[in-house]
Amino acid sequence: MKKRLLVVGGVAAGPKAAAKARRCDPEMEIAIYQEEDEISYAGCGLPYYISGVIQEREDLISRTPGKFALEGIKILKNRRIEKIDISDHVIIGKRIGSGETFTDRFDQLVIATGAYPIRPKIEGIHLGNVFYLRSILDADAIYERIQSGGIQNVTIVGGGYIGLEMAESLIHLGKKVTIVELAPQILTLFDEDFAGILRQYLERKGVNVFTSEGIQALEGKGGRVSHVTTVSKEIETDMVLMSLGIRPQVELAKQAGLRIGETGAIWVNEKMETSIEGIYAAGDCAETTHLITGKKVWIPLGSTANKQGRVVGVNVCGGNAIFPGVMGTTVFKTFDFNVAKTGLSMREAEMEGFRPIQAIVRGYDRAHYYPGEKESTLKVIADKGTGRILGGQAIGEGPSDKFIDILAMALHDKMTCRELVNVDLAYAPPFSPVLSPIIVAANVLSNKLDGNVEGISAAEVREKLETQKKNFQVIDVREEDEVKEKRIPNTTWIPYGDLKNRMGELDREKEIVVHCESGLRSYKACLKLQHEGFQDVKNIDGGMLCWCYDVEPEGNEKG
Amino acid sequence: MKKRLLVVGGVAAGPKAAAKARRCDPEMEIAIYQEEDEISYAGCGLPYYISGVIQEREDLISRTPGKFALEGIKILKNRRIEKIDISDHVIIGKRIGSGETFTDRFDQLVIATGAYPIRPKIEGIHLGNVFYLRSILDADAIYERIQSGGIQNVTIVGGGYIGLEMAESLIHLGKKVTIVELAPQILTLFDEDFAGILRQYLERKGVNVFTSEGIQALEGKGGRVSHVTTVSKEIETDMVLMSLGIRPQVELAKQAGLRIGETGAIWVNEKMETSIEGIYAAGDCAETTHLITGKKVWIPLGSTANKQGRVVGVNVCGGNAIFPGVMGTTVFKTFDFNVAKTGLSMREAEMEGFRPIQAIVRGYDRAHYYPGEKESTLKVIADKGTGRILGGQAIGEGPSDKFIDILAMALHDKMTCRELVNVDLAYAPPFSPVLSPIIVAANVLSNKLDGNVEGISAAEVREKLETQKKNFQVIDVREEDEVKEKRIPNTTWIPYGDLKNRMGELDREKEIVVHCESGLRSYKACLKLQHEGFQDVKNIDGGMLCWCYDVEPEGNEKG
Repeated sequence: MKKRLLVVGGVAAGPKAAAKARRCDPEMEIAIYQEEDEISYAGCGLPYYISGVIQEREDLISRTPGKFALEGIKILKNRRIEKIDISDHVIIGKRIGSGETFTDRFDQLVIATGAYPIRPKIEGIHLGNVFYLRSILDADAIYERIQSGGIQNVTIVGGGYIGLEMAESLIHLGKKVTIVELAPQILTLFDEDFAGILRQYLERKGVNVFTSEGIQALEGKGGRVSHVTTVSKEIETDMVLMSLGIRPQVELAKQAGLRIGETGAIWVNEKMETSIEGIYAAGDCAETTHLITGKKVWIPLGSTANKQGRVVGVNVCGGNAIFPGVMGTTVFKTFDFNVAKTGLSMREAEMEGFRPIQAIVRGYDRAHYYPGEKESTLKVIADKGTGRILGGQAIGEGPSDKFIDILAMALHDKMTCRELVNVDLAYAPPFSPVLSPIIVAANVLSNKLDGNVEGISAAEVREKLETQKKNFQVIDVREEDEVKEKRIPNTTWIPYGDLKNRMGELDREKEIVVHCESGLRSYKACLKLQHEGFQDVKNIDGGMLCWCYDVEPEGNEKG
Repeated sequence: MKKRLLVVGGVAAGPKAAAKARRCDPEMEIAIYQEEDEISYAGCGLPYYISGVIQEREDLISRTPGKFALEGIKILKNRRIEKIDISDHVIIGKRIGSGETFTDRFDQLVIATGAYPIRPKIEGIHLGNVFYLRSILDADAIYERIQSGGIQNVTIVGGGYIGLEMAESLIHLGKKVTIVELAPQILTLFDEDFAGILRQYLERKGVNVFTSEGIQALEGKGGRVSHVTTVSKEIETDMVLMSLGIRPQVELAKQAGLRIGETGAIWVNEKMETSIEGIYAAGDCAETTHLITGKKVWIPLGSTANKQGRVVGVNVCGGNAIFPGVMGTTVFKTFDFNVAKTGLSMREAEMEGFRPIQAIVRGYDRAHYYPGEKESTLKVIADKGTGRILGGQAIGEGPSDKFIDILAMALHDKMTCRELVNVDLAYAPPFSPVLSPIIVAANVLSNKLDGNVEGISAAEVREKLETQKKNFQVIDVREEDEVKEKRIPNTTWIPYGDLKNRMGELDREKEIVVHCESGLRSYKACLKLQHEGFQDVKNIDGGMLCWCYDVEPEGNEKG
């Protein structure tokens, strides 16, 4: 009897595992069970299908059942697997529609059941025009609803990346968009400063953003949603997109007695094998290891699912592939902003017991003299004790993805900032400044490790300006044209070139904080002040790049 | 007496060293000597200034003498340093123009004398309209000559990256451009296949490319160049750009008795200190270490010069910075092609005693369904013995720079292809396919290490088709539309889907080589053939992507 491999779940990890297993073993019987009517589609492309950027629905389908058949892989759609009988090596399921029960024998089993959207138990959640976006069928429903007209105001509940991708798509379609987020910031995986930059950008693009606003209920008219009620607001709306995140789909695994990890996803070893031999799990239903903290994490992503699928495909054929874990690398686009992250944020690093320091620099995509420049703001984080790079964030129209990929590789290498200053990255004027922004940031971090100048975050400065104004002076060392455009209220303006002659104006007893546009001139100013005997001098990390609070003249927000 | 730092050379490494030294030591006296009338300019931007892409000459100047003065750094232009008196710690020089001699005392000295263009000793080399492109004054001369009219045909001697950047600039200006290269290929640091892809692209852009053509003489009329004579040709020309490469400017160092390295550049240790204490060298005049081979190399680049300048700036102030070396990373743009490399080529790896294997894949910049896709052809090279990544090359309109930066980081990490398959790179549809092309290539390499299917290069296949046609069969497994567009002559066409049923048509005694467009379908075809008992089966690395030779129908070149 030929070996029989069954795969439960047909979107990403499942099909990948099946395809790889076929290449490793041409004889094995392979079948994929899928609950939906579609298999092997690009879940990450759904926001772009709704917006019309991707015009043909079939473009989202990676491989058709016919292509799988060509490789001798059987696709069994519209079938829900309800039970795994471990001792008999059998799965038991029902056909969608007819309800007919069936069983199927396996030698090895792959669980790739994915994840499902969080559906909060609030009043009105079952009203019409309340949507989720997880499967291609969800996308079909949203697409059809929007096409059929009458939708003007859309409320997105949740400020994560799917919500932010959808904000772009909906504005693109001419809708009025409001984002409602429970946390004090959108994009909670990023630090407050970068989330602030994005929020201001979204507001310039016409998106209403409300944070610290938990939703309490949905109200309706004629069975359709008409209002979203939060703690402090009532928001008129024609449609709601619930984008509160997802949870791993582990019911089948749990019922079969497979070990569920501390993250709530299916526990697997490095070979992606579950607690029961011969049964593997991969993709959004499985947990993995964070390679910086060493802890188990659940970070569902299409790219990870594909890599894990390959590992499973090798191992079900007797191979010995491993999936060591992830760095938490992520990227998304909203309007023309490219937003990316790898490793830990400042907040996460602190929570993990590191002593993080940060460098925030301008992330240009080319030499300053080469026309057409695009810029992202780049943050690189290192541990103060060891200098080890812990993470990075990039946001803006520049090559955030490139910066973050370089940093992800630095994380894989456990590089320190002192090593990162000398990496041999590609330079020519159309591709990079002569020193990559990554290297500039690594230099800033190395300087901090050397104890040259201490940094202070914009958030801390704002707090001190509000609470300790008396003992605290902020010096703006920019040029006149920059200061006229916008400045931080209650600061002293002394252009960098005048500093030497005007030091007498400063109070040596007070804490001095210096800033410029991005941090270089203010760094040099701090060095000068220290040299002249000023004791308590700090440089604002990222300068105006990260100042997302009030400015003068009013209304002149960063931009 | 204050410590006195003198810097000889004011373009890149020198000014960087001075600026960093100033930040490390506010008291030190610092002066920069420069032979030209300009300092601190972007040598790498010159081709774009000539083409008009960069419109203002002053944009090329990074820092003016006034900016240096603000930091207390003295700029002494139009002064040629002719001697270093080591025992007296004095440099001796002459003012350009007046010829007046001067001396200056130093405590520490930085030599950043750069490099000069190779000027071959051939007949006619001193004719008018024969140019070099190294300094901003060279660029001025070329710019003025072109602006003043009468230049129609330009011959570029040398197919390196400066020549190729200038080819774009000159075509942009409406000139007729011919490249003459002594070697059998342009771009000799790249492998033959990638150089072939670029050559075909340049020819489509209207550039004449002649390889294996050593120039023998320049002929003139009325004192101006009119013809370039090569071994086999006489090329009519109004202007010649000699772009044969550069050599390190080491005369001053040599005369002072500093050790010159095996590469011909100034020997330095990891601290960038020369063989004499207190004298440092940095930038294009100094050699460094190749981090893969461990050998001394001379790879002059603006980015390296800046990093080395920083290291020197720290060390002249008593610091302990090191510059470990380079990976040979390089990138340039010609027309819309981004061409990049890091580490070793196949040829270089073989010469260094590695057993290199290669993966060549399509390097898309986004998910296949996300519109506006750009593509580079990507090659990743690993050592067959250890799996260690040795290098990579990327060429095309796609994100070659991003791919190569990721690979450069993999090289810094001494990663193997088996580790590279699982790196956590940023994925979202607008930024990358779900599996980064880097990871796809790493998978191909891992499969090769596993001995699944052997690869064969396009060059080897062409040779075998010419010399061993009898015992050799090439199978094209692409679809009809692809084959109709262009195909390799003397091959058998069996679409992948038909292979199973048509295996009988193949001769089991002969060597079989399979190809498709990029290598995936042919890989699967090879697996099928092996499974059916075919013994001698190989996959053409990169398929049609790397086939730069004759095709049918004729004239239907790649692209």
